[in-house]
This record gives sequence, C-alpha cells and structure tokens, in this order.
Amino acid sequence: MSHNKNEAILLIHCDDKPGIIAAVTKYVAEHKGNILDLDQHTDSANKKFYMRVSWDLDQFDLNPPEIGLDFEQTLASRFDMNWSLSFSNKPQRIAIFVSKQLHCLYDILSRWQTKEWNVEIPLIISNHQDASDVAEKFGIEYHYLPITKENKAEQEQKQLELLNSKGVDLIVLARYMQILSGTFIKQFKDNIINIHHSFLPAFPGARPYHSAYDRGVKIIGATSHYVTEDLDEGPIIEQDIVHVTHRDSVDDLVRKGRDLETLVLSRAVWKHIQRKTLVAANRTIIFN
Amino acid sequence: MSHNKNEAILLIHCDDKPGIIAAVTKYVAEHKGNILDLDQHTDSANKKFYMRVSWDLDQFDLNPPEIGLDFEQTLASRFDMNWSLSFSNKPQRIAIFVSKQLHCLYDILSRWQTKEWNVEIPLIISNHQDASDVAEKFGIEYHYLPITKENKAEQEQKQLELLNSKGVDLIVLARYMQILSGTFIKQFKDNIINIHHSFLPAFPGARPYHSAYDRGVKIIGATSHYVTEDLDEGPIIEQDIVHVTHRDSVDDLVRKGRDLETLVLSRAVWKHIQRKTLVAANRTIIFN
Amino acid sequence: MSHNKNEAILLIHCDDKPGIIAAVTKYVAEHKGNILDLDQHTDSANKKFYMRVSWDLDQFDLNPPEIGLDFEQTLASRFDMNWSLSFSNKPQRIAIFVSKQLHCLYDILSRWQTKEWNVEIPLIISNHQDASDVAEKFGIEYHYLPITKENKAEQEQKQLELLNSKGVDLIVLARYMQILSGTFIKQFKDNIINIHHSFLPAFPGARPYHSAYDRGVKIIGATSHYVTEDLDEGPIIEQDIVHVTHRDSVDDLVRKGRDLETLVLSRAVWKHIQRKTLVAANRTIIFN
Amino acid sequence: MSHNKNEAILLIHCDDKPGIIAAVTKYVAEHKGNILDLDQHTDSANKKFYMRVSWDLDQFDLNPPEIGLDFEQTLASRFDMNWSLSFSNKPQRIAIFVSKQLHCLYDILSRWQTKEWNVEIPLIISNHQDASDVAEKFGIEYHYLPITKENKAEQEQKQLELLNSKGVDLIVLARYMQILSGTFIKQFKDNIINIHHSFLPAFPGARPYHSAYDRGVKIIGATSHYVTEDLDEGPIIEQDIVHVTHRDSVDDLVRKGRDLETLVLSRAVWKHIQRKTLVAANRTIIFN
Repeated sequence: MSHNKNEAILLIHCDDKPGIIAAVTKYVAEHKGNILDLDQHTDSANKKFYMRVSWDLDQFDLNPPEIGLDFEQTLASRFDMNWSLSFSNKPQRIAIFVSKQLHCLYDILSRWQTKEWNVEIPLIISNHQDASDVAEKFGIEYHYLPITKENKAEQEQKQLELLNSKGVDLIVLARYMQILSGTFIKQFKDNIINIHHSFLPAFPGARPYHSAYDRGVKIIGATSHYVTEDLDEGPIIEQDIVHVTHRDSVDDLVRKGRDLETLVLSRAVWKHIQRKTLVAANRTIIFN
Repeated sequence: MSHNKNEAILLIHCDDKPGIIAAVTKYVAEHKGNILDLDQHTDSANKKFYMRVSWDLDQFDLNPPEIGLDFEQTLASRFDMNWSLSFSNKPQRIAIFVSKQLHCLYDILSRWQTKEWNVEIPLIISNHQDASDVAEKFGIEYHYLPITKENKAEQEQKQLELLNSKGVDLIVLARYMQILSGTFIKQFKDNIINIHHSFLPAFPGARPYHSAYDRGVKIIGATSHYVTEDLDEGPIIEQDIVHVTHRDSVDDLVRKGRDLETLVLSRAVWKHIQRKTLVAANRTIIFN
Repeated sequence: MSHNKNEAILLIHCDDKPGIIAAVTKYVAEHKGNILDLDQHTDSANKKFYMRVSWDLDQFDLNPPEIGLDFEQTLASRFDMNWSLSFSNKPQRIAIFVSKQLHCLYDILSRWQTKEWNVEIPLIISNHQDASDVAEKFGIEYHYLPITKENKAEQEQKQLELLNSKGVDLIVLARYMQILSGTFIKQFKDNIINIHHSFLPAFPGARPYHSAYDRGVKIIGATSHYVTEDLDEGPIIEQDIVHVTHRDSVDDLVRKGRDLETLVLSRAVWKHIQRKTLVAANRTIIFN
Repeated sequence: MSHNKNEAILLIHCDDKPGIIAAVTKYVAEHKGNILDLDQHTDSANKKFYMRVSWDLDQFDLNPPEIGLDFEQTLASRFDMNWSLSFSNKPQRIAIFVSKQLHCLYDILSRWQTKEWNVEIPLIISNHQDASDVAEKFGIEYHYLPITKENKAEQEQKQLELLNSKGVDLIVLARYMQILSGTFIKQFKDNIINIHHSFLPAFPGARPYHSAYDRGVKIIGATSHYVTEDLDEGPIIEQDIVHVTHRDSVDDLVRKGRDLETLVLSRAVWKHIQRKTLVAANRTIIFN
C-alpha cells in the first residue's frame, strides 16, 4: 500500500460460488477504478471465499461515501457477502493498553513518531502508573484505571466511554496484564490485538518463560492474536520464535522474549492497519 | 495444488491495463470453470501485470487441447498477453545434471521415489562417473558426458538430443560444475534451475565458502535461480541462510551449506513444477 | 571435530566445586595432551558442573585403553564425576527404526553414503515392509518385526538381541510409530533419538499437523529428543520451525513438516555422534 | 552474566601453546575465585588461542585494582598474552552517533530507560538536528556537529574531546551517515560499532536497498561490525536477514530493513557490553 495513493480497500468473505471475482472486478472496472492489488483465497474444505481488493480512487466515478451502499445493493446482497470497506487516506485511531512492561509501548510509539505507521494514538490506558512518564514524554493522554475484582465492570465502562469519545478503531494490548470481559470484547470484536509471550498453544497462561525453561525447550516464541473470550485461544495473526540454549536462564529467556514480543506485536498491528487481515471462524486470513 | 484435481493453470504477464482480471475471470466463469486460486500482482513502477489463475476442469465446456487456441483468439491477443497454460494431471519431466557432489541428487530422487513430487525423471547427465551408482540404485538412465574445452559444443549437442528425445521439460543443475553455453540455455529458456552455494550477489563464482570464511561472515547462504548467460546473474527463485560462528571451519561451512543447498534447490523446483514461478525481466514472480 | 585427528573426547558432569577445570586441564597437560576444544557450563541455580574437553592423542603418554581407568582413579573419584570417554577414530554404530514414512530414512542413508557422517549402519528395523526396498538399494540388513499388543514384549526382545549382536551404540527412530517399553529404553538410556513432528510441548501425541491446522497456527515445528518412558517428554536436543499461512492445507503442513523433521533429526544425530550432547535431569546440554 | 554478581571478566588471546587453560584456571583457583563461565576457542589453522573466563570476586583474595598487574606479572608475560580485564559492576559508558533515521536511536534509548541494559549514555552526537527532540525527551546531552569536507577534521577533534571528557567506552553508530577518519577510529579501536543496512559483503556502500531491489533478491540483510578504516570491511559481529518477495517495493525493503537494523545493532551492542566479543585479525570471536 502506498501512503500517497487515494485507495479503496474492500475485504469480502462469503460462501464460495462461481463468478464472484468476475462480478467484483467487473464492478470496479465499470466504475473506472483501476485495481492495484487483488488477493483471493478459497477454503475448499469449507467452501468459503475470501478476497481483498484495492483500487485507485482517482478516476472512480462514485464518491467514497456512496460506494458502500451502492456495492451492498448491486453485489454484496446478491452473493450474501460479509464485507468491509476502508480508505487509505483515513488513518486508524489506536488506543494502547499497557501494564508495567514498557518495551512494546516504546516500540509502537517510536513507529508512530517516526511516521513509519500512518496512525493516530489518542490515548494510553493502564492499570498501573509505570507508563505515565513515557506517555508524557510523547505527549499522549494517559488514563490510570487500576483494576480490582470489585471495580472491574465499572472501570471497563469508563474505558469504553473513553475509547468511544476518542473514536478509537483498534485497541492494542501491549503487555496489558488484565483479562477483558466478554462485554468489553464484544464492543471491539476483531479489533483488539494482544501479544502472548509464548508460542501458543504451548505454554498458555501466566509465566510461560518459566514453563519453557523447566521443559528445557530449544526455542521460545511469541504469538499475537485477536482477543476473544477464550483466553489465549483467539485467532492467531503472527508468530515467531528465537533459539535458546541450556546456557539461557529464565532471565535470558525473558530478555530474548522481549524482542520477539515487540516484533510479533508490531507486525500484527501493521497488517491490521493495512487492512490485510480477516477473521474467519477461528483462523486469520492474512492477505499479501 | 491438489494432486487429485483435474486443474488448468494459466500464467499471464502483459502491460497493465484496467479490466484484465475482470475479462479473464469472466472468460473462465462463462465456460463453467470454477476458479480454485487466483493470485495477481501489479508492478506499479513498471506498469506490468502478472497473474496466475487455476480452475477446475470438471465442468469446463472446452476440451484441454482447445483451450489455448480459444484463449489466444478471445482474450490474449486483445490484451497482448504473454501466457502459458498447463494441466495438473500432466507431470513435468525432469533431467538432473550433476557432477561429484551427490547431496542434492539424493534429495531429489528421494522426493520423487516417495511420491512427494509428482514428476518423471527420465535421465541423469553428468560430466563425472561419481553419481552412476546412485542412478543405478534408483533405476534411472545415466549418461556420462565428460566435458573438455575442445568437446564442449559437441557434448552439449548430445545432451540436447537426449533431452529432446526424452521430452524433458525442466533441467535441474544439482551441483553441476560446468557452465552451459548460450546456445544450450536458449533451448530451455526459463526451464533450467541452478543452485549456487552462496547468498548471491555475495560470493559469486567458485569457492564461495572459502571466501565467506575469509571474510568472517556470521551467515552463509544459498541461492537457486534460473540460468541465464550471465553466470550467477539469473533471476533468483529462492534464497535462505544459516548462521555460523567463529568456531566453524571451512569444512563446517561446506557441511552446513549442503543442507541449505538441498533445501533451497528443492523449494525452487517445487515452485516451478507447481507452475508458481514467472520470470519477468531479471526478477522472478513467485505466486502463492 | 576433525575426522582426521586422533582425538579423545571427555564428557563430565558433577556437583560444582572450585578447581575442577584446573584439575582436568592440568591432568591433560601433564600427560602431554594438547587441548583442542573445551566447553564448560555451570548451572548456577542447581550448582551443577558440565564440561566437554577434547585433546590430541598424538603425544599423549597414556594408551587409549588405559585412559579411562587412570582418569577414574586420579580425578573422577575425587570430584565424584559422571564421565564418559570416546575416541574420534571409532565410528558410532547406528540402528535405524522406521515405519512407513521414508523421508528421514533416505536422508540418513544419503549422509552415510556420501560420507558426510563417519558412522556405521549395520541394520534397519521396521514394523512394516515399506522400507525394505530402500534397505536393499543401500545394501543394509532389514529386519521386519511387526508389532501387535500381544507380541510386543517378544519382538522387543528380538530387537535387543539384534542390536546387541551388531554392537549398536545409537538407535535413531526415523518416524518409527511404535512406543518403546521402559524395559527396552533402559537398555539404551540416552542413546535413543526420536523425531516428533511438532513443536513440543505444543501438539504432543498423534496427528499434530491436524491439530496445528485446526488451531490456525502460523508456525509448525519439529522436535528431536532422547526417548524416555514419558512419551514426548524426553530431553529435547533440537527444535526448529517453518512459517505457514492460511493457504496451507493439512497436506501442505505435512509436506512442509517433512523437511523440518528430516533436518531436525539429522542435526540431533550429528550432535550426538560428535559427542556434543549430555543429558542432565530433563534437559540436554549441547556443547559447542 | 548476572547483573547482581560481582564478577571479573578476563579476555585473552595469544599464540596457542599447551597448558594455558590449566595455568589460568589454576591461577583463579589459587586466589579463591570460583569460575562462573569459561569459553575457549583454538583456531587450529592459525594456531591461535582465545579465551573468556569470568569468576566470582566475593572470596577472591586480590582487590580488583591489583588483579591486572598481578596477572600480567604472573601469567600474561609468560604466555605473551593480549588480555583485558573488566568488572561486571562497572557499567559501560556509550555515546550514540546518529543522523536523520531515528529507529535505532529510539531502540537503544528504550533498552537503557527500561534498564534492560546496564549502561550509561552521557551524550548523543549528530550531524543533523533531527534527533534533538528525542534527546530532549530522554534527557540526554545532544551535540549538533554538522560535517562538511572543510570542517571534518576540526569537528572530529571536538567529538574526541567530548568523548574523552565524558569517559566514553563505546561509540555506537546508530545510522550515522558520515565516514570516520582513520585518526578518529584509532582512538577507539575495537570500540566503535556500526550497523550497515545490507548483508555484507553483498551491497556495500550507499543505497543497498535499491541495489537489492534491482537484483531481485529474495532476502535482505543487516550487518553490525566494528569500524575500521576500510569502509564496510570491519570485523562482523552479527548478521541477520528477512525474507522479501516480488511484492516488496524499495519502500517495503526499507521498512522491513529497519526492524532488522535495529535488532542486529542491539544484539551486537549487548554482546560487546557483556564483554563477549574479541577482535582477532579481521574476524570477531563471539563467546557464549
């Protein structure tokens, strides 16, 4: 995706039928859109169709606000499509949730500040005070909302109000050590990305580096995924690993793991903000 | 690609124009073909269009021998396309060229013998006798054609006759240490795959492991590429690396490199026989 | 390790105490051995000491058969060491156990045949007939010993007799799909290497590729380990992974996994035959 | 290395002779030091000996300031050793040189600020103003010293004065786009680390991502190395790569490369500050 092009991005999934690609590409061509990229996947086992198509809006003869309705009436309803439409010139608005570990936070902020990512970060939310200095350094609103068993529902309500008032599109859990409720998750379905510090499904839950050390593994991993009510069971976006040896103590695993968490989370966020991800059942389709 | 499906695979490249995808997918749909996979790439810088599309032939209303001509007349000529058409039920016929090192040869033969690859291997050609026992083990014709400066043109002529008489589609240079002439290469343009034992363009030419050792690198690589007249300059299909340390002698680099050469060559051949590669200028498009 | 040098290799583990390295290196120096390589590791948490030291035997003033006894009396007893001594010019003798999948078998045989590994392979044992042709190709004794619930103890007894009569040092389970009994394992403690086709501890047990597919992982792995009575729980020698995508079917995972299994198993065997592995509690020390 | 232990670290290289390890370990033991880690390497081809040994100073019967002189007189002179001694409780002092690209700078500062690295960063030097805001955010002295052909010698003189006045041990060139003079380099021999944005020796010099794109490579790399007068020819500390495809534009290579540069530079600095690197001829020994 070029940051300069004025581009429409359409994500589609539906039951597989002959003629969908032909119909969509004909639609774009007839409205004078030039296709910049098309990636399509058919899940033959489940007879499902997935597609991402982007086109140049310069000569397109519909105005961006009209496209959605027109597409729904003309095509989407005919094929019973799930679809979403975005525009490259409208940056995503991200809220970062963080607890005490700051490496992922620093990484995201530096990508935003150096303009590597074309996003807006209107606020940081935390259950601790540890990150408030960082937020101040970078000039971002910081909301300290400590969580106890008793106040959790109430605090989540405050979080939701903040998120909505700021027009947040995506929540990034940058080592946020609280479990979100089903009610909360539902409000941001497929728009909350978490980083788990192990190669899921190995070592779910707390203290995965200790478990990895005890098992004597030769590799440690990290997994970024969309958050669902089943903890550590959400659709996986990205995973990677690093080799370790018998010389590595738990502290070494934690240190090596930090770089991995940072990378694996940022790659997932990058794909999401490029609109290259699509959740299908419990699987993530990652377009080119 | 499923080995069981009766599938047509069409590779296209041409100048980019609006409407190509729509036209091709409409063509397939109108003839009752169900698209199994479509991957498309537009090189915006050079305004070039690349596509691979495959469809199920079961309901298709043209017979395989008719498709090419019909497609040329109906569509290809209109968009001035370069295209090629293949069928999944017709296995590629491979000739292996080898010299004294046998690891790539063993690897290819075991993939063929265990039916991992749906290919035919009618002959092995070598400028040495070292591999003749292996050929005999696996029951494959072996042609010993030693090369000197004087007899090179003549021996290449014999090779070409053998290749043509056996209906060979693809030549795999599995550590074949002779340089092929331009005349020879032209006969199998984009159908000769070589493995070079370095991460090109670092360490071209002979003895790359010695050069890598002398430079004190921390990584060694291997590169598979289509063969062109410019030695080690052909379009790259696949590259990979392995980490090395100061403890590794030249012999260790050679040993670690062998596994790399084997993998990198076999991955390139796999992509080629799946018809997932397309040479464009001096670059290789690798479809999904 | 040079194949040409006449080299003694000593592996030691014991409780950590000051002065062990000094005592051992002094011992070697006093007998006119020149140390070729020394790698030492202290597990500070558990106060354990691990060392591998190798030296040139050319000027050494003890004969190989005397070294063990002399070392035991002079040093090992003083520090209460577990130790083992080997000599580079005595190749390990390997038995391969295999079932129906042949890729690891082909790989090992080609490393032996091309002399990449300085080992002897006196026999192949299988519970199926699938590999008998391969054994014949390579001229290796093949023992077909099918296993049922009823005959298992009896067949294992036959296996043990064969292994002992052939002087086997190491058993490699090259995708052998039978569980060995505790009685059998005890006879070859720390000398049986298995390849498990997943990134343990994720997806233990049967059909890991199906489980990986169902979970929608973005990475698959393979694990080689020493065999213990707890299935898939033995000390890990080597692990590696390969990236996969939503496009990969279970068949694709199986295909990509094969290359991984082959590599991860052969790297483990290579380390073992170099005497670079030492099992400590449920962890494997891998020396440089 | 534990951050808590009071530890001496000795790096040695010299011509290989029998008895060096025995002599050094005896020396440590006799002074009541318990060895925490010993890693030794013999370059058989060039008959050179390299060793890193660390020991606990708690019971050691020499005071840190005395150790060097005593070791020189007792042992180092006997074996004609090159050696250096450091103490884990004395943090290294780092100067960062940077130009306009800020990703490596942000990364280093966040490792320092989160105390992942036990180092001090007394100053940042730049030939541009781009990083001054970042320096201010993190409260670090910033020296803007623009370089022209005419003022280069003079500015380098100012840099050296600053570095010396701040007691700097290590200079990190975090994408600093100026070539240092031989005079400057000599003052900090083996203590200047650079990151080059390619897999050296491929694509030395400027604009490596453009060259990589033009060649159609399937991998891009990054290389961290000690700086010598021969540009891009210094001893390599660390290299790594990332896979790319025909879909990646030059901009994509630059973006993917940034993460690689950041990681490869920070791994090199980590090894250096752990005193795990030793430059030998044009090669870097990396201890465990």
